[in-house]
Amino acid sequence: MQGFASDNISGVHEKVMNALLKANNGHVPPYGNDEYTKKAADRFRELFGESIDVFFVFNGTAANVLSLAAAARSFHSVIVSAESHMNVDECGAPEKFTGCKTIPVPSKGGKISLEDIRPLLKGFDDPHHSRPKVVSITQPTELGEVYTTDEIAAIAGLAHENGLCLHMDGARIANAVAHLNIDPREMTSEAGVDILSFGGTKNGIMYGEAVVFFDRELAEHFNRIRKQGMQLGSKMRFIAAQFDALLADGLWLESAAHANRMAERLYLKIKDLAHVEVTEKVQSNVVFAAIPGHLVEILQKEYYFYTWDETLSKVRLMTCFNTTEDQVDRFADTIRYVSVG
Amino acid sequence: MQGFASDNISGVHEKVMNALLKANNGHVPPYGNDEYTKKAADRFRELFGESIDVFFVFNGTAANVLSLAAAARSFHSVIVSAESHMNVDECGAPEKFTGCKTIPVPSKGGKISLEDIRPLLKGFDDPHHSRPKVVSITQPTELGEVYTTDEIAAIAGLAHENGLCLHMDGARIANAVAHLNIDPREMTSEAGVDILSFGGTKNGIMYGEAVVFFDRELAEHFNRIRKQGMQLGSKMRFIAAQFDALLADGLWLESAAHANRMAERLYLKIKDLAHVEVTEKVQSNVVFAAIPGHLVEILQKEYYFYTWDETLSKVRLMTCFNTTEDQVDRFADTIRYVSVG
Amino acid sequence: MQGFASDNISGVHEKVMNALLKANNGHVPPYGNDEYTKKAADRFRELFGESIDVFFVFNGTAANVLSLAAAARSFHSVIVSAESHMNVDECGAPEKFTGCKTIPVPSKGGKISLEDIRPLLKGFDDPHHSRPKVVSITQPTELGEVYTTDEIAAIAGLAHENGLCLHMDGARIANAVAHLNIDPREMTSEAGVDILSFGGTKNGIMYGEAVVFFDRELAEHFNRIRKQGMQLGSKMRFIAAQFDALLADGLWLESAAHANRMAERLYLKIKDLAHVEVTEKVQSNVVFAAIPGHLVEILQKEYYFYTWDETLSKVRLMTCFNTTEDQVDRFADTIRYVSVG
Amino acid sequence: MQGFASDNISGVHEKVMNALLKANNGHVPPYGNDEYTKKAADRFRELFGESIDVFFVFNGTAANVLSLAAAARSFHSVIVSAESHMNVDECGAPEKFTGCKTIPVPSKGGKISLEDIRPLLKGFDDPHHSRPKVVSITQPTELGEVYTTDEIAAIAGLAHENGLCLHMDGARIANAVAHLNIDPREMTSEAGVDILSFGGTKNGIMYGEAVVFFDRELAEHFNRIRKQGMQLGSKMRFIAAQFDALLADGLWLESAAHANRMAERLYLKIKDLAHVEVTEKVQSNVVFAAIPGHLVEILQKEYYFYTWDETLSKVRLMTCFNTTEDQVDRFADTIRYVSVG
Repeated sequence: MQGFASDNISGVHEKVMNALLKANNGHVPPYGNDEYTKKAADRFRELFGESIDVFFVFNGTAANVLSLAAAARSFHSVIVSAESHMNVDECGAPEKFTGCKTIPVPSKGGKISLEDIRPLLKGFDDPHHSRPKVVSITQPTELGEVYTTDEIAAIAGLAHENGLCLHMDGARIANAVAHLNIDPREMTSEAGVDILSFGGTKNGIMYGEAVVFFDRELAEHFNRIRKQGMQLGSKMRFIAAQFDALLADGLWLESAAHANRMAERLYLKIKDLAHVEVTEKVQSNVVFAAIPGHLVEILQKEYYFYTWDETLSKVRLMTCFNTTEDQVDRFADTIRYVSVG
Repeated sequence: MQGFASDNISGVHEKVMNALLKANNGHVPPYGNDEYTKKAADRFRELFGESIDVFFVFNGTAANVLSLAAAARSFHSVIVSAESHMNVDECGAPEKFTGCKTIPVPSKGGKISLEDIRPLLKGFDDPHHSRPKVVSITQPTELGEVYTTDEIAAIAGLAHENGLCLHMDGARIANAVAHLNIDPREMTSEAGVDILSFGGTKNGIMYGEAVVFFDRELAEHFNRIRKQGMQLGSKMRFIAAQFDALLADGLWLESAAHANRMAERLYLKIKDLAHVEVTEKVQSNVVFAAIPGHLVEILQKEYYFYTWDETLSKVRLMTCFNTTEDQVDRFADTIRYVSVG
Repeated sequence: MQGFASDNISGVHEKVMNALLKANNGHVPPYGNDEYTKKAADRFRELFGESIDVFFVFNGTAANVLSLAAAARSFHSVIVSAESHMNVDECGAPEKFTGCKTIPVPSKGGKISLEDIRPLLKGFDDPHHSRPKVVSITQPTELGEVYTTDEIAAIAGLAHENGLCLHMDGARIANAVAHLNIDPREMTSEAGVDILSFGGTKNGIMYGEAVVFFDRELAEHFNRIRKQGMQLGSKMRFIAAQFDALLADGLWLESAAHANRMAERLYLKIKDLAHVEVTEKVQSNVVFAAIPGHLVEILQKEYYFYTWDETLSKVRLMTCFNTTEDQVDRFADTIRYVSVG
Repeated sequence: MQGFASDNISGVHEKVMNALLKANNGHVPPYGNDEYTKKAADRFRELFGESIDVFFVFNGTAANVLSLAAAARSFHSVIVSAESHMNVDECGAPEKFTGCKTIPVPSKGGKISLEDIRPLLKGFDDPHHSRPKVVSITQPTELGEVYTTDEIAAIAGLAHENGLCLHMDGARIANAVAHLNIDPREMTSEAGVDILSFGGTKNGIMYGEAVVFFDRELAEHFNRIRKQGMQLGSKMRFIAAQFDALLADGLWLESAAHANRMAERLYLKIKDLAHVEVTEKVQSNVVFAAIPGHLVEILQKEYYFYTWDETLSKVRLMTCFNTTEDQVDRFADTIRYVSVG
């Protein structure tokens, strides 16, 4: 069944698969002590500069949670958007592994604002309160919006002034970079991000995410944090080879830009339909739309996608690296057909 | 460089790689709600019977730690061999994730005995002591020995009589089954094992391990334990497809039997050499041998293997699914050449 | 300096101190295996019926956190008022010890409503979300309001229908019982409360709180949870003797009723003053009032009390078992004097 | 029933009780922001010098566990005697709260030796192993032996050379100081101890222990660690007043010296009895003796004491600050009477 449910329903990009095949050759030291891992790390240094540390983990939950563990102790708190994956979709993994308090703040389109953060920046010396230590933002947000570099720099500034770090959950960072059409450094290291979860799985690799440290002091114990966090893969070469292929020749951006275009295409085709109300800005690879429930039911007989919010009858329609124009067009046609009755 | 360092230095079996290629087709529901995962689970039911639950995770650390989390609360203790991976090679992951006390007991060849367990089975109603709840054994052990079905059944009996569960770390279970040449049920469900970590990575797959529950009540919350444990992969089909290929047509046993034969071959060729003393029984895919340090240094210039115990100058020589007779013979020749000076 | 800062700035009631003196006699088994502890538990059974289990701990943080640990596993979530102690004043102790996600809901006067809870009662079978397991309410609330028995029963009903427990943080439960003037069972066991943190320290004892289980199945492992939670006192007789004295002859209610009357007295004397706006219902031993900051500054030169919310210039004025009418009157006079300039 | 079971079966020294009565006066800021706490801290500075930080907690479990939490992260390990309270009597509290691996080493009389520690000081850069971070010794040991200052200095030296801290569990430190008859600094700060759990409860106070930091950098976050560890008492003045009384005029040493003398007296009276074999050195307030089980049964009808090791029929006979010569003599007489039949 054709799907717009998520970018994780897609498989693996052909070039990535070829890289896996090529990496399957001979005996290679385990646990990241290999040439593939070295090369993949080099790719990240090409992208973000020499002054980083990068580690590979299995999935996005881990990239985020272990990032927090690197920056915060259990008596610290982490400020996140109420809509964030970290807050609602990790079954409490951040609390369990770090012991930290997660403080959800309201958001618009998944973005948190200085106004929401500021009142929380207090009680630094009061032992009754968890000390604020990390702000974590998702780029693009879970609702598909993209923070501008200025917005990121402003949050980073506020965070740093108060002794906090800025973590960026970049599970779909490629889509944000493609949307802003900038050097990825502009919205990360140069904007003040301290730790980045750099997503791979949602962008055409089989498994694997990277944790990139711009504040390298935070990486001091990460080798052990990753191991104790059950995220040190033995045959690391295979994660590394995938990232090498993803970052080589700009495949990561090309795939993301394609997915973004497919979302834009879908958006343009359905935005003016009766019974369809696009509810969020379309800035990455996703369209959110309110569609009456009985119509959603009909559509879900043919297409695989999620209802995001049942009370608002809001659905999430997500594209990915291998969504085709034809698939988009036929899906849009079906929506039109259903919506006009 | 040719290696006998571990079975995780090998890559992926060709049949497994082909399965990955075939699974890379179309859109598939994430997080295990797919046909590949269903089929892989069916393979496990063919192997172990209908009355099991099976879950896939990324690596062996997680298979073991999450198994404990399923069986024990933080105020419980877990009895393990002092030599076990769980005790010495997980950077405290069991303690961190479960909060349990790990109680190491002495072992012979990595095997724990009823005599070592019995004195720990006390204080069940004394709140000052962690209540014993799990015995975990490794099959084959970290030193390559294989528990007989009788030994396992005896430990299970003692455990069950006292309200404990038996967990088996089967990171290399295929090698044990191949050695004993029995139906795998005989040494697991029928012997009283309650939870099994069923290894894949060390037996020719790229990544992925399975947790098999014979006591299905222990699986009640495992779906959430796995998620909160950062081990729920989104593109689950790719772990599943590998296990499907591994279990189909007995590939898992064939690969393990081959690795065992290569270890046996190596053993026969070096056991009587001067300056070489084989220190453990050779029952799976590994040979432990005491070799003088200066000879080890020479060997390690050409071959990749680990010194297991520096104080005893004991090395570990491990074979894997794709070790060839020729590689073994040349390695053995080199050892002979070096050892006779 | 005379204080209205909190009820924990007061000392120990004379009758409680006498009980401590009397308990200091001879050798007594430690860790609660003594006659004093048995007798104190009997007092609780007189109060709440035979069908309870009761355990003593050192402080209120522990009573609350260990109650959660008895009811919830790490993959569960706990619904609390955003204003609750559990959410803002425990430095993340609930998250650290239980691993659970704390979900704050908005409140009116510290009370949470069915409307706020209902939308959270979902995702029970979705491993991505922490499973809702406990609702915790504070009686009276941190803002001094008292839930009616009907309100409690309604929350309990909703909780139980959905498989959740109801925990009551009764750090000041005596003040609520005194306010409602009912049998304490009506607002606890009979209203559907499953676990109660029964406060002692804020009501004239030196140290010690009780955890009362109405759902005794939840108490199954509490003996070990308390020990592992670092809350098993060795000289338990002294906590027990205090509770015995507190519950004997209704001292607990008499003290609370007095404190309530003192708050009411203060309220009546300041409620109509210029520049003073009482912001919350006065139903227990506390008055919240908005008073201009410069007046607060003047007052704090003579009196010890807290500013609750700086942005609203809201202060908390709390009475306790040994606050005297004279103290209240002089404080009210000072406020009047300051407020009229 | 007269008891030699433990020093925690005793009550509160009269002078301490008087201090509690005196502290029960007026309104006092909570959570340690009071003059009593300041004064008690000053007492500790008189004892150990100006360059310390001191914090009060409720009990010994907490003093030890929170000390570890101050010094170690979850990926660290803690080296302790296999006989230590930390290892066997805390229901896994260290593992639960810190996530650290506890590594038990064999001991003689509860003392650990350099030879036992040295082999564990490895793998500092290997993420598979918990990094050794703390050595914790008990002074006097759980078996009543007292480390000499030289022994402590040697362990501290080895620890520090390897980047580890030295923690001392001084639940009965007064008994050790009394035995060695030295300035307490000689065996703590001057010997290289970094953190000390200074016991009060077993030496005649009602409740309360102190954590003394000689390495003050380790105290950086302790205020929050204590709060999150559920050990910040609100009416702190009462713990503080007890320590003030205990340390004033040398009461702590006087009480401990008395208890030691009573143990020595008991030892001298029973050491040569038939059927009685004193098994450990008598250096503090305890005598361990092997006595045939049927005789123990008879004795326990009249006296309250514990069997320490059933397999060896070894009992623990402990004295305390208010054990009298007469009690010792009558107990010794009973033992003699029973032992000679």
